[in-house]
Order: sequence, then C-alpha cells, then structure tokens
Amino acid sequence: MNNLTWHQTVLTQSLRSEQKSQKPCVIWFTGLSGSGKSTIANQVEQKLFQLGQHSYLLDGDNIRHGLNADLGFSAEDRVENIRRVGEVSKLFCDAGLIVLSAFISPYEADRAMVRNLMNSGEFIEVFIDTPIEECERRDPKNLYQKARAGEIKDFTGIDSPYEAPKKPEIILKTQHLTPNQAASKVIDYLMVNGNLMP
Amino acid sequence: MNNLTWHQTVLTQSLRSEQKSQKPCVIWFTGLSGSGKSTIANQVEQKLFQLGQHSYLLDGDNIRHGLNADLGFSAEDRVENIRRVGEVSKLFCDAGLIVLSAFISPYEADRAMVRNLMNSGEFIEVFIDTPIEECERRDPKNLYQKARAGEIKDFTGIDSPYEAPKKPEIILKTQHLTPNQAASKVIDYLMVNGNLMP
Repeated sequence: MNNLTWHQTVLTQSLRSEQKSQKPCVIWFTGLSGSGKSTIANQVEQKLFQLGQHSYLLDGDNIRHGLNADLGFSAEDRVENIRRVGEVSKLFCDAGLIVLSAFISPYEADRAMVRNLMNSGEFIEVFIDTPIEECERRDPKNLYQKARAGEIKDFTGIDSPYEAPKKPEIILKTQHLTPNQAASKVIDYLMVNGNLMP
Repeated sequence: MNNLTWHQTVLTQSLRSEQKSQKPCVIWFTGLSGSGKSTIANQVEQKLFQLGQHSYLLDGDNIRHGLNADLGFSAEDRVENIRRVGEVSKLFCDAGLIVLSAFISPYEADRAMVRNLMNSGEFIEVFIDTPIEECERRDPKNLYQKARAGEIKDFTGIDSPYEAPKKPEIILKTQHLTPNQAASKVIDYLMVNGNLMP
C-alpha cells in the first residue's frame, strides 16, 4: 500500500455540514430481528426530512442486496458486513449527512469497531430493547418460526448470541413506546446534542 | 439469501433530489495515473458547492484506506474494488447526491458493470484523455519512475492494460485545457443534461 498517498479533498466535512445546517453523525440502531430497528429508523428519517435535514438510511436488507451481496451469515461474514457498513457510514458522515444504520449488529466488538472509526461524538448507539418473546410474537418475516424449525441457522437470539450494548447513548423500550414516540426520543437527543442547527 | 426481504424506505430518491434541487448522478472519471482525474474532480466539486449543490467525491486513494483496505492491485482485486465503489456510488446517488468517482478503472467491463448498476442516464463517464508520455512527465507521485524500475508491478499503462472508453459522455484532453476549463466543461454538461435545477 506504499504507492498510495492520501488525497486531500478541497471540500471539507465542516463546509458540507455548514451547507446542510447540521452536525453529521451515525445513528446506529442495534437490536434483535423484529425489534423495530428499521421501523423506528424510517420514522426518524421522515422527521429529519420534515425538519429540512439531510440524511440517509443504511439497512441490513438493502446493503445485503448490493455492496455486501457476496457475504453470508457466518460469524466471519457478519464481522465483514459490519466493517463495510461502518466504512460506508464514515463516508456518508464525511459527506455531511446524518446516517441512520439499522442492523442487528449482535457483537459488542463490531459496534465498538465502528465507533472507533468515527470522530469523537459522531457515533450514537441506539439500543432497540425489545425482549425476544415480543420479537418472536411479532415475527414480521416469519424468521423466528423458520429458525425454531431449524430452517435458518445462526439466527440471532436462537442459536447465535446477541450482546446487548453496555452503554448505548439511547435505549428505546418498544413495548412501552409507539414507533413515533421512539423516533421523537431520537430527535430530542439530536437537538440536545447539537446535531441539528437552527 | 431467502431470509431477506427488501425493506422499502419511506423517503425516496425523488424526494431527496427535490430537497437538494438536483438530479443525482455519478460522474465517473477514468484515466491513467497522473492524467488529472482527482484534480479535475476536486475543481468540479468546488464549482458545484459554489452553485449550492450537494456532492461527494469518492477517490481511489481514500477508499483504499477504508472500505477497500483489504484489497490489493491484482486483476481480481481491481474488479472487486470497482464493484464496491460502484455499489457505494449507487447508495450516494440514491441519497440524492451528485457523486464524483475518480478511479483509474482501466477495464471497460468494470465500468460497464457500474453503468448497469445505475438507473438510465445516471452514469456520466468522463474520459481524462492524457497521453501516457504526458502522465509520465508529470509523475506527481513518482509512480511511473518506480514502475519503470520494476518496484511496482501491474502498473496501468506500463505492465497492465488501460482500455480507453469507447463512448464516454465527456472527453477531456488535459494537454489543451487547464483543470478549471476542464471542470467547467463538466458543469456545462450537467446544466444541459438537467442535473442542476435552477
């Protein structure tokens, strides 16, 4: 790699942020399948749009149809999946956008890796804290049913571990909140944290 | 991959484009090392910023320090490098941005693959048509010197082929243009093509 030099782009993150009246960040939604990550992330994006902010949502499903279509669900591929999403989040953040990333991201070490990629304060970890019984009851894609039947292997919460965040910036208990209320809590955090400039 | 469903995000590319007063696209700069890709792409970005547009520059050098840090310069890795950049460009385009990608991207097939990833009219191929003698004379990073000395293998134009675009949207002959003039030609194209809304 010694025949590479870092190309200093002329436009900086700071100029792009100013143009967009926001302090870019990565809002990282983690939680079990069916916990409500994508639903809440979508609601947050809608609210940001209504406020005139510039955001983009990276989602386990749409990333896996494109950039990470070559990856499966083994432990090794899950790590690479999150690494790439982290690097792409960093690019979007550098572009001045508020990035929403909705991934199960079950391993503490992987989420810590992404946090470390970002500048200080740019990584906002949101734990969608829904008990597995509730996720399994919702089962919007019938995945728990298939996992219980042995049709899907390495399914998080069934035969693959989920390591809950120890110190997330935000915890959302979806049994006691509507998606809209949950999304409002994220927006409130961004306001207080100075991500949204008046 | 059958346990994935495409998650339809609520915000669409069209809403984001409207918010940013632009029709998103990928401006793909291809050419030899030292041809002027990054220099011209940076000038284009500056002009877009002055016009109030929203853009982001993906660059061979900075992508390779992050997302593609696991890839080398073998033929296989070059293909994967361009595939990932194409997929990331597609995401940025979906986010409503004007993406500038500055990569040698020596193979016609790889550039065609990226073109096919995009919606019709979104891919704007810019051939930075600088003769190798001129690139070698400039040699800003002393790479040609090292390649001639055998210190770098698989160097495009020396011991690895460069397949010039057959039908690029824009051709820039940098021997007869300043970077500023070259960048203006790209902006003119975007104006005529309807990418920049008044």
